[in-house]
Amino acid sequence: MLMTESTTRKTAYPSPLADGNSVLQRESELYRELANANIENYAGTARVPVGIAGPVTVRGDEAKGEFYVPMATTEGTLVASTSRGMKVINESGGVRARVIRNGGIQRAPVFEFHNIDDAAEFTRAMTEDWSWLAPVMESTTSHGKVMDISCWQLGSLVCMRVTMDAGDASGQNMVSIATAKAVTSVLQRHPEVKRHLMAGGMSGEKVGSNINALLGRGKSVVVSVDIPGAIMRKVTRSNIEDIPRLHRSYTDFAMLAGNHNSHHSHNNVLPAIYIATGQDPATLCESSYAQNSFDLDREKDVLRWQVHLPNVNVGTVGGGTGLPTQRECLELMDCYGAGNVNKLAELCAVASLANEISFWGSVCAQEWIDAHANLRQK
Amino acid sequence: MLMTESTTRKTAYPSPLADGNSVLQRESELYRELANANIENYAGTARVPVGIAGPVTVRGDEAKGEFYVPMATTEGTLVASTSRGMKVINESGGVRARVIRNGGIQRAPVFEFHNIDDAAEFTRAMTEDWSWLAPVMESTTSHGKVMDISCWQLGSLVCMRVTMDAGDASGQNMVSIATAKAVTSVLQRHPEVKRHLMAGGMSGEKVGSNINALLGRGKSVVVSVDIPGAIMRKVTRSNIEDIPRLHRSYTDFAMLAGNHNSHHSHNNVLPAIYIATGQDPATLCESSYAQNSFDLDREKDVLRWQVHLPNVNVGTVGGGTGLPTQRECLELMDCYGAGNVNKLAELCAVASLANEISFWGSVCAQEWIDAHANLRQK
Amino acid sequence: MLMTESTTRKTAYPSPLADGNSVLQRESELYRELANANIENYAGTARVPVGIAGPVTVRGDEAKGEFYVPMATTEGTLVASTSRGMKVINESGGVRARVIRNGGIQRAPVFEFHNIDDAAEFTRAMTEDWSWLAPVMESTTSHGKVMDISCWQLGSLVCMRVTMDAGDASGQNMVSIATAKAVTSVLQRHPEVKRHLMAGGMSGEKVGSNINALLGRGKSVVVSVDIPGAIMRKVTRSNIEDIPRLHRSYTDFAMLAGNHNSHHSHNNVLPAIYIATGQDPATLCESSYAQNSFDLDREKDVLRWQVHLPNVNVGTVGGGTGLPTQRECLELMDCYGAGNVNKLAELCAVASLANEISFWGSVCAQEWIDAHANLRQK
Amino acid sequence: MLMTESTTRKTAYPSPLADGNSVLQRESELYRELANANIENYAGTARVPVGIAGPVTVRGDEAKGEFYVPMATTEGTLVASTSRGMKVINESGGVRARVIRNGGIQRAPVFEFHNIDDAAEFTRAMTEDWSWLAPVMESTTSHGKVMDISCWQLGSLVCMRVTMDAGDASGQNMVSIATAKAVTSVLQRHPEVKRHLMAGGMSGEKVGSNINALLGRGKSVVVSVDIPGAIMRKVTRSNIEDIPRLHRSYTDFAMLAGNHNSHHSHNNVLPAIYIATGQDPATLCESSYAQNSFDLDREKDVLRWQVHLPNVNVGTVGGGTGLPTQRECLELMDCYGAGNVNKLAELCAVASLANEISFWGSVCAQEWIDAHANLRQK
Repeated sequence: MLMTESTTRKTAYPSPLADGNSVLQRESELYRELANANIENYAGTARVPVGIAGPVTVRGDEAKGEFYVPMATTEGTLVASTSRGMKVINESGGVRARVIRNGGIQRAPVFEFHNIDDAAEFTRAMTEDWSWLAPVMESTTSHGKVMDISCWQLGSLVCMRVTMDAGDASGQNMVSIATAKAVTSVLQRHPEVKRHLMAGGMSGEKVGSNINALLGRGKSVVVSVDIPGAIMRKVTRSNIEDIPRLHRSYTDFAMLAGNHNSHHSHNNVLPAIYIATGQDPATLCESSYAQNSFDLDREKDVLRWQVHLPNVNVGTVGGGTGLPTQRECLELMDCYGAGNVNKLAELCAVASLANEISFWGSVCAQEWIDAHANLRQK
Repeated sequence: MLMTESTTRKTAYPSPLADGNSVLQRESELYRELANANIENYAGTARVPVGIAGPVTVRGDEAKGEFYVPMATTEGTLVASTSRGMKVINESGGVRARVIRNGGIQRAPVFEFHNIDDAAEFTRAMTEDWSWLAPVMESTTSHGKVMDISCWQLGSLVCMRVTMDAGDASGQNMVSIATAKAVTSVLQRHPEVKRHLMAGGMSGEKVGSNINALLGRGKSVVVSVDIPGAIMRKVTRSNIEDIPRLHRSYTDFAMLAGNHNSHHSHNNVLPAIYIATGQDPATLCESSYAQNSFDLDREKDVLRWQVHLPNVNVGTVGGGTGLPTQRECLELMDCYGAGNVNKLAELCAVASLANEISFWGSVCAQEWIDAHANLRQK
Repeated sequence: MLMTESTTRKTAYPSPLADGNSVLQRESELYRELANANIENYAGTARVPVGIAGPVTVRGDEAKGEFYVPMATTEGTLVASTSRGMKVINESGGVRARVIRNGGIQRAPVFEFHNIDDAAEFTRAMTEDWSWLAPVMESTTSHGKVMDISCWQLGSLVCMRVTMDAGDASGQNMVSIATAKAVTSVLQRHPEVKRHLMAGGMSGEKVGSNINALLGRGKSVVVSVDIPGAIMRKVTRSNIEDIPRLHRSYTDFAMLAGNHNSHHSHNNVLPAIYIATGQDPATLCESSYAQNSFDLDREKDVLRWQVHLPNVNVGTVGGGTGLPTQRECLELMDCYGAGNVNKLAELCAVASLANEISFWGSVCAQEWIDAHANLRQK
Repeated sequence: MLMTESTTRKTAYPSPLADGNSVLQRESELYRELANANIENYAGTARVPVGIAGPVTVRGDEAKGEFYVPMATTEGTLVASTSRGMKVINESGGVRARVIRNGGIQRAPVFEFHNIDDAAEFTRAMTEDWSWLAPVMESTTSHGKVMDISCWQLGSLVCMRVTMDAGDASGQNMVSIATAKAVTSVLQRHPEVKRHLMAGGMSGEKVGSNINALLGRGKSVVVSVDIPGAIMRKVTRSNIEDIPRLHRSYTDFAMLAGNHNSHHSHNNVLPAIYIATGQDPATLCESSYAQNSFDLDREKDVLRWQVHLPNVNVGTVGGGTGLPTQRECLELMDCYGAGNVNKLAELCAVASLANEISFWGSVCAQEWIDAHANLRQK
């Protein structure tokens, strides 16, 4: 997004809010200073109810032990169903979680050339060696590292997708600034460039797109739990035999509808955690891509339930993570500050899996809708 | 999501938060009662900074006049850039906005039959006449109306996608309850059904999917503004000739990447408005589907900029809309309560268009990244 | 495609082929007259080897009894593997086949209006009543019937997707001519139309697109066979327990890759039948969309294998169906001429299923590649 | 596909064709021997009319000079419209063509592990170093070279996508055999593999999938022509100003429909050339992926028209290329045998571009449908 003089002046707009009796404004001084880098024309704070899901037992590479997960939501039953799934996980001995790929963060400027040959030569040159550009980009940041630079050509246009490791930050601004410097260097080294465009459609930013799942963006997390049939039946009144079969029909129709992936809960759970912890909810479309895998052992009466989230885009420093309630929610998971980003990604995946377990359990138990009805009739 | 006895009891979990010195808990009594239907294991409220974008001049079917738009976000420059786009709109004489389709809200249960013939006969029968099922579904709700029932067959399975008009509510619970009743009636009338599943993958709920854009879900909104070149140059230092050309290359690469649609800003603006006004941010993946259209008049030096958002999923009653700050934000737009859902949908589209204008203006002016840098160096 | 004076004159081009010793030209007089409406600048006939797969026992609505299927291909093992799958089908008691939807044939002209309101009013009017347009379109054809007219709006543009029943023909030309007449009538009735475009991107013609699977194009065919484990083991040395599991992993990775659907064989079998029978191979991308469904009965040791092909685009009259070898291949299946289009669609799906059975059997038996190797070493 | 003893015996099936008076069987001895490796249960040859499009002036890296393109089709106007587009190209000074990427040919076996950690470790190990596997694979072929090995994990499953350079052959069998050897070596080196599957859904074989466009499969070809407005008007009676605008609306609606890409003609032209030259028409879904790019120079009244085909999957040796008429058609383009695969790929793209030019010209001139009508009324 953009801030220029002409817009910063806009903060002089008279607030349409009546002073004094505004709930938004109550205690807003708590945030006024802190919010300075996060917002313009500040009017106060929206308050989103936070429920605590958990505890859940996690055997992650980073998240080890029992965790409570704060969820900011106004959707009734979301926290309860997540907690219910966590109960299944706990009684099953906990869940294994692992970040299998750091997909980094991307920008994708476009360069226009005078003909397809210049475009092809540029693509070839960059593909053969982009090492000269990495230090240029890294000179703009204290922690960002260049992971990859790839080019795709369409006619006389070339889209250059740069990937940087943002460490514990979400890294949107870092990669933007490094990319601006990269573009300047490319223009100097390649005078044959006719025009350029900073935003080129292949960054995968804030969209559901196969390029993110295939080539990476954010953290790729895999979680796995072995659920005994007796536990699933006790907690959710459903049979583990039903779940892979029902999920298969769900997936086949989802594919027919044009969905990119097949799951139910991640779009519900991730925004609740993101809002509570100061993440950018705009990344939901990429972060919520997920696929379930099942392996049913009939002899042992155990269902192995695995979820793959290839693009969990989170940070534990910068952005909104330092604001009071956001920081408090991160601290609740021992995820505040440097060194915790993979832990947070693991917990996001674990909470999503927990909700998925509860959802499918209720669907198989034919209780899903009744639950809504019960809630509604309260 | 699900709430059953076993889960409501979970609200007895001890809160992991230390009492007294929690920011989450400060003034939490404000929300405790109100949040009862919206959350479980309540721990307090997350506070998200709210900035006010605007005013923007709207010539909508419902939104008429000047409006301020509250945005809850921690992404710096988002409010400022939206306000900057609104300035372009205002100086261009305002924006036309119109809801062109009420896509309703969907559920998609699945019925399994003993063979493909029973499945085909069921599909044929439901396609020929579903009028008998409408009153059954409508008996469960005071306001919901059945708009459509369509079936798709895969082998011996049939997915039945029901669409209801939820009026001013988002309607997720309403349609769930009506669908549960519908399934019961179908089972009574069609004893040849072998098994059924309440959730079948074709509802389009909370996923990016072509089925929503093609067949409808939420409100389809179209907005249109005619921007004189002089105004675009003055406010954004960009030339209107560049925008359609640059957007075209953006779109071509986006298609190559596997994106479902082509825009930049809607995933940023919509969650900010959704969080501020108590909408369900989980619907972002469907709501943020958008496509830009351009028509450049070189003689008059005017760019017609239009955005189509086919699936804006909002409500002005129920859900989180009644909570204090959420209600206050809706009232700020004169959108609180019954009769305002189309007005809110129009304003969501207008704000997204405003941000899109500012974003592309900054990209064409080669200022996009600089803005981030300026912000960061503050 | 197009033929105008300027192009018909092109048939005067000197043939680059040397006369007399050309295989293309041998017996080409057989086709010269007949090919007149099917090709320009005729030079002779390409000869594609035809193998006969079968027989296969079919219990279709139209295809009843034993059938041989001619396949024109240069891919070794294709006919043999299809025949092997047919053997599995025959020993399993034959396959049930049924056309569950006639999706018709589409064209999608676009109308541009002066503003979004005219576009919206046009869309509303056409959605409410298109009955006046049907007789106009049907006046241009002796057999075509209008099935549906649907509109989608983007900004000031409206794409009008018309669907006609082409009877036993593929119907591409028929629907084109009827649509041209429809456009003329629309322009007369709606002077507010600013510009129009005959081809608008939503016809689904010759592309893989969800719109075809969802809304229909060509014949939707479902086939189903119950395969006893003993027969699958005997013929393919594979276990029926493995197939749904392996296919599930295949589908999950296919979804990750960005495939629209999940099957292996239909793209192989359909073009072979299409070339042999004078169908338009250009429709392969839409025709080959397919999804497998499985239901494993462990007690009875039976695998129910079902395939859904929503968009099989074939004809038994017109196009290339009347050419000598093409007609002969249609007659071989008793599918030549009027009244046979559904029978041909059923047989296309049956042959595809047969190949799918053989393919997955060989994969599960770990023999797939060996077969290629054996062939190669011959 | 598969050939085993049980199926080769099927060639003993009595032919359902009456002897003597079968057109399929006339001169079939011409093909009987040659077809031996290409087909089973041989019954004769299907004859597809071949028209000669051209000549077209090409400035390719490989295709230099004037070329005639043989097209086997039964779709009237296809050859004529392609020739008409070639006339536009010729009078515009010819077309530049270039293969910008050799995407190779893929297979994608799947390995199942006992847990996500073994799967992750395997993925990490293969990603760090697959050089040990290349010689194993290359030992099975005289010309194939390993280009890349990439892995994707879902739960405990890993899909390994291997890419080989097949030289002048399509290479399906070569890569299959090399992959079988690779799997054997992987199983020896990684005893922790629980199960494996030779076909895993990420090969991109014969499907429309973003993975092919993004990561490569077949030849990526770019073609570019600068068309003066006067020439486009003379030959097609259309204005070059209209084409980018109309194509843009076509693309926007195509995206709404769920199409993966946006073009009209490639699915028509490629199968005609593939059938004539003995290519595998089953690869049409991947080969026909294409995107148009336009750059209109109003001052010079010139339209730059470029097409990108990332996945043209062709061969000039092996497969059906050696059969009499197929070889003759390849020789007509001087593309028969080793060293010509890129030339053939260039000519496929050039012919597709020519047809695209003629198609859009006729649409913009409002003559598209009339042409069909004229043809039909003949």
